[in-house]
Amino acid sequence: MAGYEWITLTTDYGLSDGFAGVLHGVIAAQAPWVRVVDITHQVPPGDVSRGAAVLAQAVPYFPPAVHVGVVDPGVGTARRAVAIQTPRGILVGPDNGLLAGATDALGGAISVVRLTNRSWFRPDVSHTFHGRDVFAPVAARLAAGVPLADAGPALDPATLVRLPEPVMELGDGYLEAEVVTVDRFGNVQLAAPATALDGLGEHLLVGGVRATRADTFADGQPGRLIVYVDSAGKVALAVNGGRAVVAPGVTPGDVLRITAT
Amino acid sequence: MAGYEWITLTTDYGLSDGFAGVLHGVIAAQAPWVRVVDITHQVPPGDVSRGAAVLAQAVPYFPPAVHVGVVDPGVGTARRAVAIQTPRGILVGPDNGLLAGATDALGGAISVVRLTNRSWFRPDVSHTFHGRDVFAPVAARLAAGVPLADAGPALDPATLVRLPEPVMELGDGYLEAEVVTVDRFGNVQLAAPATALDGLGEHLLVGGVRATRADTFADGQPGRLIVYVDSAGKVALAVNGGRAVVAPGVTPGDVLRITAT
Amino acid sequence: MAGYEWITLTTDYGLSDGFAGVLHGVIAAQAPWVRVVDITHQVPPGDVSRGAAVLAQAVPYFPPAVHVGVVDPGVGTARRAVAIQTPRGILVGPDNGLLAGATDALGGAISVVRLTNRSWFRPDVSHTFHGRDVFAPVAARLAAGVPLADAGPALDPATLVRLPEPVMELGDGYLEAEVVTVDRFGNVQLAAPATALDGLGEHLLVGGVRATRADTFADGQPGRLIVYVDSAGKVALAVNGGRAVVAPGVTPGDVLRITAT
Repeated sequence: MAGYEWITLTTDYGLSDGFAGVLHGVIAAQAPWVRVVDITHQVPPGDVSRGAAVLAQAVPYFPPAVHVGVVDPGVGTARRAVAIQTPRGILVGPDNGLLAGATDALGGAISVVRLTNRSWFRPDVSHTFHGRDVFAPVAARLAAGVPLADAGPALDPATLVRLPEPVMELGDGYLEAEVVTVDRFGNVQLAAPATALDGLGEHLLVGGVRATRADTFADGQPGRLIVYVDSAGKVALAVNGGRAVVAPGVTPGDVLRITAT
Repeated sequence: MAGYEWITLTTDYGLSDGFAGVLHGVIAAQAPWVRVVDITHQVPPGDVSRGAAVLAQAVPYFPPAVHVGVVDPGVGTARRAVAIQTPRGILVGPDNGLLAGATDALGGAISVVRLTNRSWFRPDVSHTFHGRDVFAPVAARLAAGVPLADAGPALDPATLVRLPEPVMELGDGYLEAEVVTVDRFGNVQLAAPATALDGLGEHLLVGGVRATRADTFADGQPGRLIVYVDSAGKVALAVNGGRAVVAPGVTPGDVLRITAT
Repeated sequence: MAGYEWITLTTDYGLSDGFAGVLHGVIAAQAPWVRVVDITHQVPPGDVSRGAAVLAQAVPYFPPAVHVGVVDPGVGTARRAVAIQTPRGILVGPDNGLLAGATDALGGAISVVRLTNRSWFRPDVSHTFHGRDVFAPVAARLAAGVPLADAGPALDPATLVRLPEPVMELGDGYLEAEVVTVDRFGNVQLAAPATALDGLGEHLLVGGVRATRADTFADGQPGRLIVYVDSAGKVALAVNGGRAVVAPGVTPGDVLRITAT
């Protein structure tokens, strides 16, 4: 097999400890030709849902790669470790829902294996750092082109853990949708596609606050809440020159109601 | 043309979302041989002035490169997107002043083009993420050695947006200068060259606070404010063993007065 | 000499300024074939002890490399700058204890030189940014395979500055140990090897708080303090589903007492 030249990393390890650097080291030692890209290591600790959203929205922009995701509050327990072959790369990580959105974004699972072949792991696997001891070494081996089937027994893709679908309801003159992420700029991404805005018009209420349909941040009056389609194709909220999150005071998981006025 | 082996990235995207990673992905997909270096993604959101200072002080230390800067509160509006050829590399980003200092630091603009050739962009350019859809793909193409002139029409370099010059006034026995940046260590960099300290002597007042002229942090008494020339050749303030910013309580944009005593 | 393909960076420069990016630039300009990996740039400013712990725990996972460490509150003073040859790579940085643990982790010092050869430095070495002007250029030259002895005069390894050994005392039914680090997840690492727990049993008191000996985070009841062996082989504390640091309220340098019940 041809293997992969690229490995990406998405974790909640942060950048203050050496954990993310160690993943680079393990891969460098084992597959020195591989180019490693950090998608982010700043997923909030243990926030599988947030990690899944970041990963799903980033992987489509990469060349074929082995994508490692480690947001793994169940590390050391019976939760399965998996590798998922898709048409556009392989995903490696815990089977806790983290990889599901990215799997869809890369074209769906062609085959899945449970990572059980201990000869692919580092010796003396720790109970708490499977990124270093399991996922990075497995990714390095897959990047080298070793067949996925050698990593462990095949799993039925239908048995992969999936996160609950976020709330999204379209009604007569309204849209209700769950907040997926609030980004660094305070822009609020909802679990609704662009088409969900069809027919709601230009003048909207978001949780009772007046808002305007706009194309870009600067379209609204300064300080005005705008509803737009973000760069991932989702309905989103922003405040021109401000932080959208301040206006509606929302966090991921909240459900917002947008109504026509 | 020979092209470039290096692309650098300076943005306000932060590292908590996948935005910076996506830039790496776009470049990897399009110009896989390029080596990508992050200068910083932690410019405060929308702080063009701060981004310009960081970029200008970093680019001189790189080999010839395509430097991408994206601090772009006007994304999606009529603000121009540009590429600037200098003797030591190309700068790519919005025409909002972000690139001006770096242009000077690399030897000045030889030629400038407005980025209008949509065949160089990603299809379906979003309104809010031109780093991904415009600047990264353009940088990848320029790194491949495609002539700058193919990216769009030439612009007169004199029309590039420049930030206001920071305040700097030298008088009889005093120096007044604007705070450019406060770095992670609390060191306060002023918009004044080393020579601005000539003739002020060893014993100084900074906004009324006693300070000492010193070569390095440890020269002052512990807790004492020192005035020194920083690693960018600018006048700067620090507290030995502390954070300078605490003493004068300043932020970028403030103007400080240093007087001889 | 063969030289090295890898350079790692561990600093307290943070990621908000361009300092870390500049190190990459200097190395890229001087040794473009080298692959540079960031272990971390988020060591708390000036915290040599923390930097030493991060570096020592990360370097064993890398292929042979030049490891640059810069946590250097004495920059610009008479503190020595050194390069340390070990069986598995070279360490470069200030002689303030930062490199000692990593030296041990890589098999000990074979030879040490004081960095005095100014032709290896950047011209016009600043007083405050030796990462850029001294350590990065020296690392690039060593990666190129230039003999260590050309960097300056040999030093007796026994004269290298070492940090005080952290407190660790094993008694009859108790363990007292210093807190080395508190990681991003709130896990508290103590300066005690796994064997220090032998004979203390399953039910413990940590500073008077009930705790349980466990293998992994999820072994305890939710909210319960657990004592486990972390991925570096050290005794550590965590709270299942929480932040260990909240329970005992500790910071690095504190000494905790663990007793059998």
